[in-house]
Amino acid sequence: MLKWIPAADGRFSVNGLPWLDENGGRLARFPDRAQESVPGTVWSLSSMTSGGRIRFASDSGSFSIRASHGSEPRMIDMSPLGHSGLDLYAGPPGEMNYWGTSTPQFGGETYEHTYFRGLRSEMREFTLYLPTYNDLDMLEIGLDEEASIAVPAPYALDKPVVFYGSSITQGGCASRPGNGYVPVLSREMNVDVVNLGFNGSGKGEPSVCSLLAEIDAACYVLDFHVNLPTAAELEAVYAPFYRQLRSRRPERPILMISPLYSSSEWYDKQTQAKYGGMRSIIRSVYEEAVAQGDRHVYTVDGCSLIGPGDEGRYVDGLHPNDIGFRQMADRLQPILRQVLQIP
Amino acid sequence: MLKWIPAADGRFSVNGLPWLDENGGRLARFPDRAQESVPGTVWSLSSMTSGGRIRFASDSGSFSIRASHGSEPRMIDMSPLGHSGLDLYAGPPGEMNYWGTSTPQFGGETYEHTYFRGLRSEMREFTLYLPTYNDLDMLEIGLDEEASIAVPAPYALDKPVVFYGSSITQGGCASRPGNGYVPVLSREMNVDVVNLGFNGSGKGEPSVCSLLAEIDAACYVLDFHVNLPTAAELEAVYAPFYRQLRSRRPERPILMISPLYSSSEWYDKQTQAKYGGMRSIIRSVYEEAVAQGDRHVYTVDGCSLIGPGDEGRYVDGLHPNDIGFRQMADRLQPILRQVLQIP
Repeated sequence: MLKWIPAADGRFSVNGLPWLDENGGRLARFPDRAQESVPGTVWSLSSMTSGGRIRFASDSGSFSIRASHGSEPRMIDMSPLGHSGLDLYAGPPGEMNYWGTSTPQFGGETYEHTYFRGLRSEMREFTLYLPTYNDLDMLEIGLDEEASIAVPAPYALDKPVVFYGSSITQGGCASRPGNGYVPVLSREMNVDVVNLGFNGSGKGEPSVCSLLAEIDAACYVLDFHVNLPTAAELEAVYAPFYRQLRSRRPERPILMISPLYSSSEWYDKQTQAKYGGMRSIIRSVYEEAVAQGDRHVYTVDGCSLIGPGDEGRYVDGLHPNDIGFRQMADRLQPILRQVLQIP
Repeated sequence: MLKWIPAADGRFSVNGLPWLDENGGRLARFPDRAQESVPGTVWSLSSMTSGGRIRFASDSGSFSIRASHGSEPRMIDMSPLGHSGLDLYAGPPGEMNYWGTSTPQFGGETYEHTYFRGLRSEMREFTLYLPTYNDLDMLEIGLDEEASIAVPAPYALDKPVVFYGSSITQGGCASRPGNGYVPVLSREMNVDVVNLGFNGSGKGEPSVCSLLAEIDAACYVLDFHVNLPTAAELEAVYAPFYRQLRSRRPERPILMISPLYSSSEWYDKQTQAKYGGMRSIIRSVYEEAVAQGDRHVYTVDGCSLIGPGDEGRYVDGLHPNDIGFRQMADRLQPILRQVLQIP
């Protein structure tokens, strides 16, 4: 017999969903009140649980979940495991091992997935990654009736790194939720993260900036750009976004990432102009911030993360596959360690 | 205006589909006559075009395709791009660059996808990878009306390497057709390949062995095992399969790959027993072949390709993601180069 415990139960640590308590346990990335302030597309996307993690230690010899999704996304570039699966990892920070991924079912009914059962009862530490591109109408964790639940080891920092961006930030198109660049960095650096990547909708609105600034972050990573239709439109919002965030968080590090190299820059002059223009704009905003005395601002050229010759690291010329995300994480990690002063 | 040319047109080199001519241009992996000899599941899977490539050089400034699929696979672990997309690479052997993937549409209607247009007219060499987990009812390539079509550079060997196996061989779960371990090896070693991976159905039947043996291969890679329900059932078929192939091809290299490490071997005794048993059986068949004087037989332990600690290289604990396929290819490449005597 298993006991079924709701994901929002106080015995679990829920990371990556900063407004969980305010929302009365609803698994979502924004507070309920944001529905009135942010654009509708951003609001819908905020119900997707990318970056959400349930963490705890337990001596349970079994581990199952019950979950249901409001919808079945039909994505051309992500599989159901990729958009809706939940990844279980075991082990303490720095030594986490992938265990398995739930096989999601759709149509609104609750499905059950067993990661393991019948194992010896010994304390193990778990991280369950919530879906990247789907919501969770409900999630319960099933453990042995007599199992104990304990607090997991702490992250290296007491504040999360907050990422804001587009589909790539959200995790498109990793094969499963543990493999986007944000979760890979979280795992390898042992830092908490909040993933505010919004597929196609990372457009730098002041209302979104406000919410970002509510989170007391160890660092803000701004990875938004290409969702704006043109370089001129990015120019109109980028510096204001930075200034708004900076005024609310005067001394927190802000790391600005410019667009990755897209394989269509090879041959498509329009993309060349748009992406190249965006990289210059972000570089200029960074340089101006430094010139005005900001000592907590950093920038990374996206082409240094995935650049010319790296096109095979995409699923489609634009969205990284697991190899691309791995490379992004490898190349961002030393920079983020420096910014966060983690050895 | 584009001119539309059927994929089986004689001006294109079609690789990976050895019975194309016998089939009157039908894009499939087995000859029509195999329908009567091979199991029904294998026959259905043989209509999927995994490993098929259309190759040519052209000075066309545009490149489009028209394609249609008989069905829309609903796979839990592969996206539509993964199961049905067509990847375009450009460049001569050894310097191929990923260009893009078609966005497939389903429902039986023909869809059109443009990889590029309006480029300067100059000779480029192309490789178009056919779908990994879907068939092609039709495929036409659209080039500029006045474009010339020339023969692409030859592969390093005049015979293909033939791979026979399961879903993993077929390419599950690469993000797109260029990223399975078979196409990666083909690209990096500049060798032709035939992919006879059959999802769930690589069970070593004599009728399938017969077809394998029809192909005059540079090397046969036997990567079948886990589709048999038990180690005992693999034992019953493995040595006979090897002997049948060897009697037809007395001096061709045969490379036997045993099962990759599956993440459930961690904790599931049944999987441990099955996979461990299968590795021993394959090792024994290899050793006996050597003892009996076969100087053209080789083996690779699957755990040396993806082993304990590598679980993150799967999409689900069993099927490699792009990182896992990359690792498999990296580790197989020196062995295959030795077997094939390619420097």
